[in-house]
Amino acid sequence: MEDIISLSYGNGGRKTSELIDSILMPELKNDLLSPLGDGAILGLKNSNIAFSTDSFVIYPYFFPGGDIGKLSVCGTVNDIIMCGSVPKYLSLSFIIEEGFSTEHLRNIVKSIGATSAKAGVSIVTGDTKVVDKGHGHGIYINTAGIGEKIEGLNLGVSQIKPGDKVIITGPCGNHGISILCAREGLFSSQIKSDCMPLIPLLDISKKYRQHIKIMRDPTRGGVATTLNEFSEQMQYSIQLLEDKIPVDEDVRAACDLLGLDPLYSANEGKALIVVSEEASEGLLKDLKAIDIFKDAAIIGEVVDYVKSKVLMKTPIGGTRILDKLSYDALPRIC
Amino acid sequence: MEDIISLSYGNGGRKTSELIDSILMPELKNDLLSPLGDGAILGLKNSNIAFSTDSFVIYPYFFPGGDIGKLSVCGTVNDIIMCGSVPKYLSLSFIIEEGFSTEHLRNIVKSIGATSAKAGVSIVTGDTKVVDKGHGHGIYINTAGIGEKIEGLNLGVSQIKPGDKVIITGPCGNHGISILCAREGLFSSQIKSDCMPLIPLLDISKKYRQHIKIMRDPTRGGVATTLNEFSEQMQYSIQLLEDKIPVDEDVRAACDLLGLDPLYSANEGKALIVVSEEASEGLLKDLKAIDIFKDAAIIGEVVDYVKSKVLMKTPIGGTRILDKLSYDALPRIC
Repeated sequence: MEDIISLSYGNGGRKTSELIDSILMPELKNDLLSPLGDGAILGLKNSNIAFSTDSFVIYPYFFPGGDIGKLSVCGTVNDIIMCGSVPKYLSLSFIIEEGFSTEHLRNIVKSIGATSAKAGVSIVTGDTKVVDKGHGHGIYINTAGIGEKIEGLNLGVSQIKPGDKVIITGPCGNHGISILCAREGLFSSQIKSDCMPLIPLLDISKKYRQHIKIMRDPTRGGVATTLNEFSEQMQYSIQLLEDKIPVDEDVRAACDLLGLDPLYSANEGKALIVVSEEASEGLLKDLKAIDIFKDAAIIGEVVDYVKSKVLMKTPIGGTRILDKLSYDALPRIC
Repeated sequence: MEDIISLSYGNGGRKTSELIDSILMPELKNDLLSPLGDGAILGLKNSNIAFSTDSFVIYPYFFPGGDIGKLSVCGTVNDIIMCGSVPKYLSLSFIIEEGFSTEHLRNIVKSIGATSAKAGVSIVTGDTKVVDKGHGHGIYINTAGIGEKIEGLNLGVSQIKPGDKVIITGPCGNHGISILCAREGLFSSQIKSDCMPLIPLLDISKKYRQHIKIMRDPTRGGVATTLNEFSEQMQYSIQLLEDKIPVDEDVRAACDLLGLDPLYSANEGKALIVVSEEASEGLLKDLKAIDIFKDAAIIGEVVDYVKSKVLMKTPIGGTRILDKLSYDALPRIC
């Protein structure tokens, strides 16, 4: 391999084979990927499957707590989990800008390999394109994922009822604030992204399958936007308790200084779970027993005195409406 | 919608919803896509599935015979068919450059809708990202696809035996030459891309399931590169007969003038099929009865007197080796 990626690495010929053999296969090899045809044939145990995709255009592509490779795996793995399914297989597609460092690519692929292994998924099919300089930004990655649906876990906004509790699995807003600080060189960029695969949530989902109404990872647009996506599809509202919402100290301080709201900042390793009231304390206790969810909290509940809103109750007893994200604080955070 | 796509259409908030509601849903709506969660739950009839992905970075994104939207559907649909499977579901992910024309996006989405309908596939999950100006080139699209495997059709290089015939479903090289001419404004850009979904091949594949050894669509790198991918994985060689290879007159003329070889030029609506000798004439006859395959031809056979090569027999009796594409005639053709 040359030190930088030239256009010919994307021509589908000899150079593309070289890139696959020397960079991709050593990190990602498995029996399904190896034949390298136009796609993979998968034998699933379950014919009810989840299917999801995301493209990742984050800049910078290396950031505190992760990189675009780790994020590309976590993003799709978490989306599959949010569908109530066990992630099994990923596709992986690169759009690389001519001139990109081969070493950076190698490190990103290593990170994809390590995160996939951690999440228990196999990369089974892929694609590499190279675009001419000035028509990309280093590297963009798309992943699509397939998971097997957990039987008896039937998620949907229509399952939500007044009295249901809203749980978040950890502090809000870390990813978005981390990327902002990394990009702008603020606060010596010490705030880490929360980017991680939410695999331990699978056991919890199975245990509480009869009680969980919906799960969603609050990525772009943050917690406020995700909860609005729920509320606008239902007759009820979601009422949050401001002083129950966990936010890390450094994220809170950065938000205060920058005039940002952690509820609109992206997360890449958190889930919002709406669960029946009766199961909520048990689910929270089980979550908190898992290290990555130790700061989980019940942050609100579903109420029926207003229609289709997200309401925030402040500690002094006031209530305000939380809208969807409309102003773009920070583009290209995932 | 505004006339051009701004960064805020990719923020995951209100503007992203507007783009989804006003441009995507009218063309692509179906029961599985509508809930707009993090992914779709699919109930398959068959738990043996094909999974494939491609990113499309073609420029220009409108070209004679198609556009990037049509290509994005055809590319993945055809890859699934090449896996011996019936394409069912697609994911769809956009990376749009800030400043892209909303009308162009609308036309591309229309084309995606029309091609999906023609191919019998549903778009069930998707994603939209917007990158800042100067970090894209109008629009890039990723699709991933899921298909149900045709029972009894077991494809692989290991199935190939000496005596097997190589069939191509139509003339070679149209897509690559079309894009080159469109990009450079050559020959008044009259040469059309062959971009199309190969759906009629499914019935043929079922009928000859016991005889077809492998199928592959010769996209980037063309027929020569695809056949090399077969030959380098086997003990035998593939011997082509130069005068049997169909090439359209206008493609041949353009190649002669430009010093290009249609065997290295991309196709986006052709398949190479390796089939047992005994079934080859019957399969060819059935192919030729279908309008889009009327120029199909047996172009060569598998031989065992040389190992792992692609050989070309010229009309005057000479033989030369056809290698994989190594020099990059034309980047970004798909």
